[in-house]
Amino acid sequence: MIKQSAWRVLTAFAFAWLIVAAPQAAAQDPLPSWNDGASKRAIVAFVARVTSAGPDFVPAPQRIATFDNDGTLWVEQPIYTQFEFAFDRVKLLAAAHPEWKDTEPFASIIDGNAERALAGGEEALLQVLAATHAGMTTDSYERIAREWIRTKRDARFKRPYATLVYQPMLELLNYLRANGFKTFIVSGGGVEFLRAYAEEAYGIPPEQVIGSSGRLKYQMRGDVPELLKLPAVDVVNDKDGKVVSIQKIIGRRPIAAFGNSDGDLQMLEWTAAGKGARLALLVHHTDGTREWAYDRGSHVGALDKALDVAIAKKWIVVSMKDDWRTIFPK
Amino acid sequence: MIKQSAWRVLTAFAFAWLIVAAPQAAAQDPLPSWNDGASKRAIVAFVARVTSAGPDFVPAPQRIATFDNDGTLWVEQPIYTQFEFAFDRVKLLAAAHPEWKDTEPFASIIDGNAERALAGGEEALLQVLAATHAGMTTDSYERIAREWIRTKRDARFKRPYATLVYQPMLELLNYLRANGFKTFIVSGGGVEFLRAYAEEAYGIPPEQVIGSSGRLKYQMRGDVPELLKLPAVDVVNDKDGKVVSIQKIIGRRPIAAFGNSDGDLQMLEWTAAGKGARLALLVHHTDGTREWAYDRGSHVGALDKALDVAIAKKWIVVSMKDDWRTIFPK
Repeated sequence: MIKQSAWRVLTAFAFAWLIVAAPQAAAQDPLPSWNDGASKRAIVAFVARVTSAGPDFVPAPQRIATFDNDGTLWVEQPIYTQFEFAFDRVKLLAAAHPEWKDTEPFASIIDGNAERALAGGEEALLQVLAATHAGMTTDSYERIAREWIRTKRDARFKRPYATLVYQPMLELLNYLRANGFKTFIVSGGGVEFLRAYAEEAYGIPPEQVIGSSGRLKYQMRGDVPELLKLPAVDVVNDKDGKVVSIQKIIGRRPIAAFGNSDGDLQMLEWTAAGKGARLALLVHHTDGTREWAYDRGSHVGALDKALDVAIAKKWIVVSMKDDWRTIFPK
Repeated sequence: MIKQSAWRVLTAFAFAWLIVAAPQAAAQDPLPSWNDGASKRAIVAFVARVTSAGPDFVPAPQRIATFDNDGTLWVEQPIYTQFEFAFDRVKLLAAAHPEWKDTEPFASIIDGNAERALAGGEEALLQVLAATHAGMTTDSYERIAREWIRTKRDARFKRPYATLVYQPMLELLNYLRANGFKTFIVSGGGVEFLRAYAEEAYGIPPEQVIGSSGRLKYQMRGDVPELLKLPAVDVVNDKDGKVVSIQKIIGRRPIAAFGNSDGDLQMLEWTAAGKGARLALLVHHTDGTREWAYDRGSHVGALDKALDVAIAKKWIVVSMKDDWRTIFPK
């Protein structure tokens, strides 16, 4: 008797839960900052296809999603945030380097003329990165970068860089993870700079962050082992390099990839060329009022060939102006 | 009334479950293939320390555990399994390479004389790896390696290589994962060879496998992108290289590391030098009857300096003969 009534009650509870839970789930939009339009519908349809029983079902361990960072997850204009960080470091270290006053690109950076500093091209940038990103341990670098990203404010939006992330993309990351995806960053930025905030800002742990990197040297300081950052580039994680890194580090092809510039074209191509349902998405910076408007010919994050390919191949092209209700977190 | 009786029944169920479950949990040994001894006790005590509230608690995302592969998770004698695979490939490809009959180390391999082939040292090995691990796409290589590991039998134990894994280490991997650890392989072996069986054999997905690797080239074959394996070494993931890879790919220091040879010394040092509770463990091959007995002076997996350091620093040194009830899965 007790057993029977117990089952009745348990069953009643179970149904009550179903009745209450089902409408809640339907009402809760996982992408509230996305306007209802073709982009959002295509994303939701893709997730439904690969997570539901049927010919396009993908087992959870294979649900790999890779995201570019600059311009895809956070702001990259007017210059890459990591350059801003490097320039700040040069100014801070200038007192200990009197010779920089007469040496380019350091002199221009100290003068606050970023444009003239960048005019020196790749060679000048490598000098700046060597002076600001090497000659210290990985632990020291992490502390310095983390502190800067949390506190330094962007000149236009007057917000700390760590908060200049795109709210719709945060929702997308959460939505994919809630559906069994493993989310990775695959960025041209320095991997240790990215890791200084990726976990806090995006919920992406260090081991799911892939970026460019310099050489490291393992050495003993007395009894204590340390890793020293050397002034030599090891991996440039851009264009073809993104696909190579994906294979080397993740070891399987993503089923979804997200970018915003020609540097992401190969990653999207590689992802889209896999068998089964695939999602390739470009964020198009079309909102000069709320963020920045740029594509072909931009000196940062140029979107040219990849836009042509995206249109031809019917990849998702997100218009920030039309598809996004909000840009930054409240 | 219904509500009250429902709660009574639910409560009764809950307690009944506790009474039944508690002794079951205590009775269920997560490491049944480990003899009760100092090694097992030290492992269990470490896991309890880092997962329980207290000064040594480590949040789950930071519970990184890294495992060497050859000699730590599976057999490495009489020669590394990957060399056995490469030698088999040479024999299979010999018909298409008549010149190999008169060229070392290929001639010795075709004659079945592994020792003479290996006498050519690193230079000879690189030739063999270039001839057998390059000039094909990553997809083709994966298929070939996977098939070989599943079917090829070891000469002494007459078992497919995929089953020559250590049962106590499989239990240890599961035990750590059940306690919120993320388990990684950090091996000197080729990363793509490892990935061909790591998920099936160890439950470790490709993105948690770190190994040595060759250069890759991204190219289009018509409309289809592919990654070609080039005959050039990129990363040698051994000794210092293991620590560098851990930093570059995982991005945080492990709290537990497992190895068996001098090639693992730096990884264990780096792990042990972190703040808080740490576990460093060496598998010592002491069982010539059930497996192999070797350490200092072995031509494969020499354990010499690392054994001295382990004893001095009181790391766990597992004796396969005394600590392991079983070697291979049933």
